Amino acid sequence: MTHEAFRGVFPYLVSPIDEHGGVRETVLARLVNDLIDAGVHGLTPLGSTGEFAYLNREQRRRIVQVVVEAARGRVPVVAGVAATTISDAVEQVKAYDALGASGILGILEAYFPIAEDGVVSYFSAMAGATALPVVLYTNPQFQRSDLTLPAIERLAKLPNIRYLKDASSDTGRLLSIINAVGDRIRVFSASAHIPACVMLIGGVGWMAGPACVVPRQSVQLYDLCHAARWDDAMRLQRKLWRMNRVFAKYNLAACIKGGLELQGYDVGAPLPPQTPPSDAGRAEVRDVLAALGALEPAGATG
Amino acid sequence: MTHEAFRGVFPYLVSPIDEHGGVRETVLARLVNDLIDAGVHGLTPLGSTGEFAYLNREQRRRIVQVVVEAARGRVPVVAGVAATTISDAVEQVKAYDALGASGILGILEAYFPIAEDGVVSYFSAMAGATALPVVLYTNPQFQRSDLTLPAIERLAKLPNIRYLKDASSDTGRLLSIINAVGDRIRVFSASAHIPACVMLIGGVGWMAGPACVVPRQSVQLYDLCHAARWDDAMRLQRKLWRMNRVFAKYNLAACIKGGLELQGYDVGAPLPPQTPPSDAGRAEVRDVLAALGALEPAGATG
Amino acid sequence: MTHEAFRGVFPYLVSPIDEHGGVRETVLARLVNDLIDAGVHGLTPLGSTGEFAYLNREQRRRIVQVVVEAARGRVPVVAGVAATTISDAVEQVKAYDALGASGILGILEAYFPIAEDGVVSYFSAMAGATALPVVLYTNPQFQRSDLTLPAIERLAKLPNIRYLKDASSDTGRLLSIINAVGDRIRVFSASAHIPACVMLIGGVGWMAGPACVVPRQSVQLYDLCHAARWDDAMRLQRKLWRMNRVFAKYNLAACIKGGLELQGYDVGAPLPPQTPPSDAGRAEVRDVLAALGALEPAGATG
Amino acid sequence: MTHEAFRGVFPYLVSPIDEHGGVRETVLARLVNDLIDAGVHGLTPLGSTGEFAYLNREQRRRIVQVVVEAARGRVPVVAGVAATTISDAVEQVKAYDALGASGILGILEAYFPIAEDGVVSYFSAMAGATALPVVLYTNPQFQRSDLTLPAIERLAKLPNIRYLKDASSDTGRLLSIINAVGDRIRVFSASAHIPACVMLIGGVGWMAGPACVVPRQSVQLYDLCHAARWDDAMRLQRKLWRMNRVFAKYNLAACIKGGLELQGYDVGAPLPPQTPPSDAGRAEVRDVLAALGALEPAGATG
Repeated sequence: MTHEAFRGVFPYLVSPIDEHGGVRETVLARLVNDLIDAGVHGLTPLGSTGEFAYLNREQRRRIVQVVVEAARGRVPVVAGVAATTISDAVEQVKAYDALGASGILGILEAYFPIAEDGVVSYFSAMAGATALPVVLYTNPQFQRSDLTLPAIERLAKLPNIRYLKDASSDTGRLLSIINAVGDRIRVFSASAHIPACVMLIGGVGWMAGPACVVPRQSVQLYDLCHAARWDDAMRLQRKLWRMNRVFAKYNLAACIKGGLELQGYDVGAPLPPQTPPSDAGRAEVRDVLAALGALEPAGATG
Repeated sequence: MTHEAFRGVFPYLVSPIDEHGGVRETVLARLVNDLIDAGVHGLTPLGSTGEFAYLNREQRRRIVQVVVEAARGRVPVVAGVAATTISDAVEQVKAYDALGASGILGILEAYFPIAEDGVVSYFSAMAGATALPVVLYTNPQFQRSDLTLPAIERLAKLPNIRYLKDASSDTGRLLSIINAVGDRIRVFSASAHIPACVMLIGGVGWMAGPACVVPRQSVQLYDLCHAARWDDAMRLQRKLWRMNRVFAKYNLAACIKGGLELQGYDVGAPLPPQTPPSDAGRAEVRDVLAALGALEPAGATG
Repeated sequence: MTHEAFRGVFPYLVSPIDEHGGVRETVLARLVNDLIDAGVHGLTPLGSTGEFAYLNREQRRRIVQVVVEAARGRVPVVAGVAATTISDAVEQVKAYDALGASGILGILEAYFPIAEDGVVSYFSAMAGATALPVVLYTNPQFQRSDLTLPAIERLAKLPNIRYLKDASSDTGRLLSIINAVGDRIRVFSASAHIPACVMLIGGVGWMAGPACVVPRQSVQLYDLCHAARWDDAMRLQRKLWRMNRVFAKYNLAACIKGGLELQGYDVGAPLPPQTPPSDAGRAEVRDVLAALGALEPAGATG
Repeated sequence: MTHEAFRGVFPYLVSPIDEHGGVRETVLARLVNDLIDAGVHGLTPLGSTGEFAYLNREQRRRIVQVVVEAARGRVPVVAGVAATTISDAVEQVKAYDALGASGILGILEAYFPIAEDGVVSYFSAMAGATALPVVLYTNPQFQRSDLTLPAIERLAKLPNIRYLKDASSDTGRLLSIINAVGDRIRVFSASAHIPACVMLIGGVGWMAGPACVVPRQSVQLYDLCHAARWDDAMRLQRKLWRMNRVFAKYNLAACIKGGLELQGYDVGAPLPPQTPPSDAGRAEVRDVLAALGALEPAGATG
């Protein structure tokens, strides 16, 4: 499925799994539909919030399949591919491409530290296995490897490596990347950056878990930034930021799943031994959602 | 000396020391004068770039005295106070107050990790020792303690704790601080944040070493941000950012001293065993300054 | 298969994989046989050195099966189980138990930080899924969670959690564990500890990659420690330590595989994007093996 | 004052300071005398436990003077010298040499990360400023620089750099150092290593805060290790280790001062904003000392 250049708000979807390991397909499809109705510009299954690290091959594939089918081509679906080996990454890329994904979010898991040549060969192999656009994902907090600026510059030469999503909290790093490869790579923010700041410096949107529970507000923020109405954008940003911080305090997946449960989506808890949000965490999520007028499902008043 | 509320560009001054441990007073006074001519809004001796950690009591006092005298009340002088004990901090505060400083930049050095009550008592004692406004300095990278948000909220209740300068690279942290205490504490950026972003989210300026070598450009950036001319601001910010990153690659003091030497200020090298910038480092600094039209002294074409 | 209490030298086996993802069974079986001939007291497939993080379900199972079959009950086979979810861990435990493993080395992989209750529930579920003895594996360097002393004390109450292998470099931590639960849990060293020291403080052996390439010398060291011939033990330990440090400099799996290749075992390189040892790394491994008289296969000369 | 080669138990002395910043000389002299009576082999003022980072120039000098005078040449006094600049370090070395110290414990404080050449020049200048033997102090936890093995090898060539004290918890690192320079540098343990293990691998003793409160037991442990009575040594070591761990849980200086207070030494609290031990901490220290029969002053019963 071809799409225009990716831009805007891409919620990181949660992965609802039942007690037998099956995908809760109905609620996932309903969430997809509601988010699209709320105006999001794309969808990203199998990001951090999507618990990619906790799902097996079959569960991952089924998640991608359900999301693609529910999206019905209305917005691009950028599927996360996370692996430790090149062979596993390539296999996932091909599978999700065949399932109809619109793009690939490339994540490198590492157990042993890995040399830069290895990092580059991993993402190159991934890009070589598909004609879909690839989003480089860099997360110095969770991965044991990182994409250095020289590695990004090498990868930017590949024709279908066209986006980057940075999950650090170092916004200056994004400006350095934009300065270096901004003509070839478009940059998305993640939830630890202030989206309005990333838009100011030249970013094109954000891929983040919180957009699952506040999609309308997120799209509104994007529109204000895109229109360069910075004062209005900051007023909204300031309110939305409280939510990013609440979510940062807890396990991302637990909190987004907890927030969706509060909104009436029966997505369940994160996979054990992860634990559901504590009562205090749940109360804090509820407070923040209430303050943002987001205790109803995204699709409630579409 | 009373001043209006602090805002704008406050260069972190270097500390020029001769081979006998004396302060190179002439060059320091000349730098102060040139920076004021270039339009900076204030001056900050004894920050990180000022090598506070490498100077003894007498050197620190003499630095403050020379800067205050050279400034002649034209701009506020906010002197850095760094100590491990409350008694040493209080002694420094009183000394710099008596020397005519306009404000105090409070820095906590810690050897053993320190409990939050200890952190709060340290800054409270500092604020209690003077009527001058106090700037809280927080630098998770260099100090072994940090100012948590709850600690900042407690300190914000003291009448003369009115500013905060954050030296992390986590810009989102600043927005959380502004959300929590923005009505009582004004926030300055440091060199690891993108100044334009900090201005966008509600900051009032920046305190940083690079402004020593690019004062005019820094003031211009501040003016553009202050006027909400964000597109123009970002064009300039993007160019200036290259400099922040070059300086971040090397020892801050070594690089700013190296840059000033290139501009004709005989400020010398950082104190041994710190080493002067390498040839490669010096070349990189020269390139960046040349690209910014900043190879002449700040006061050259005032 | 029942065995006496585990003690002594348990090499962490490498996982030889061919270019199609198949297990190189012949060389793995030969290595198993040679190590047993060299006197090792047990075998541990699927530890860090065994690249568990890089293998899929089928590869892992086949590795365990080949090792169990080649061992023919002569020494216990303790299979590594690493997972992020309880369900995956339990499935692996049951599979390796059914394949004839003599014990389970329990490893917790985490993507998000995990609360202590979650950690305890993970290992408890693992122990509950088998009657085999379980070895707790703790590695603060590679895992994003760690087994605290209180968690270990809770787990020590389960009847078949009977061993612990610590992969930190903090030997004092082991003495604290022995002080706390030494009557119920026996402690194995890993390659970052000095095995002779761990034996001195009450350990019962070590599980480590280097023993793959110097099995005879490792067994000799164990025998000297066991006999409390500490002077002789330290003479040998000092020589063997050089090897632990060479291996610590490089990717563990790359180095052990590289060393085995030098000895004539065609185990191949670590899985891409991991890279084979550099020429310098290979030369350093060769020097160390030569100094230890270990450039021949383990089984070459009895 | 000349002494035989340093070996054995060197307590890190606390620095008792009164509310006016003066040294509590009587109690410090009494502690020195009691520790010597208890059999310690040397004394180390101005280590971490001695709060060197919290004392000014005059306080440091007075501490050294009081300790040297109270020791009356009965045991060597190795004074800690900690500085960020070479000039300050050299000044301290000369001062403590003139005051009659028997050796210098060299500590490098760093604010900015420092290149290896700078590290080597710092310790070289220190060694060049005195004829006294110098102990290299390396503490990766508290300093922002560390002594790498290549740096240690360069420094070992200087004639009066003859000892090293390592404050990491990585005992294997000590064996690597002994393997590399053991013929020229003798190695002391610190409180995070298990002293018996360091003795086993070739160490000559330990410099540590806990020996202030359990000097007799520490000397007994040393004697057992020195006599290669490892079984007896480990029995005692196991009991003593509980104390090292209690002290590691809290601010070192707070705990040793708290323990000495319990023994009747009026050494006061650590300098503010450090806080005295909590009630729980104090109770835990009391329990451990009671279990070791160490609630009386060291000198109480010869």
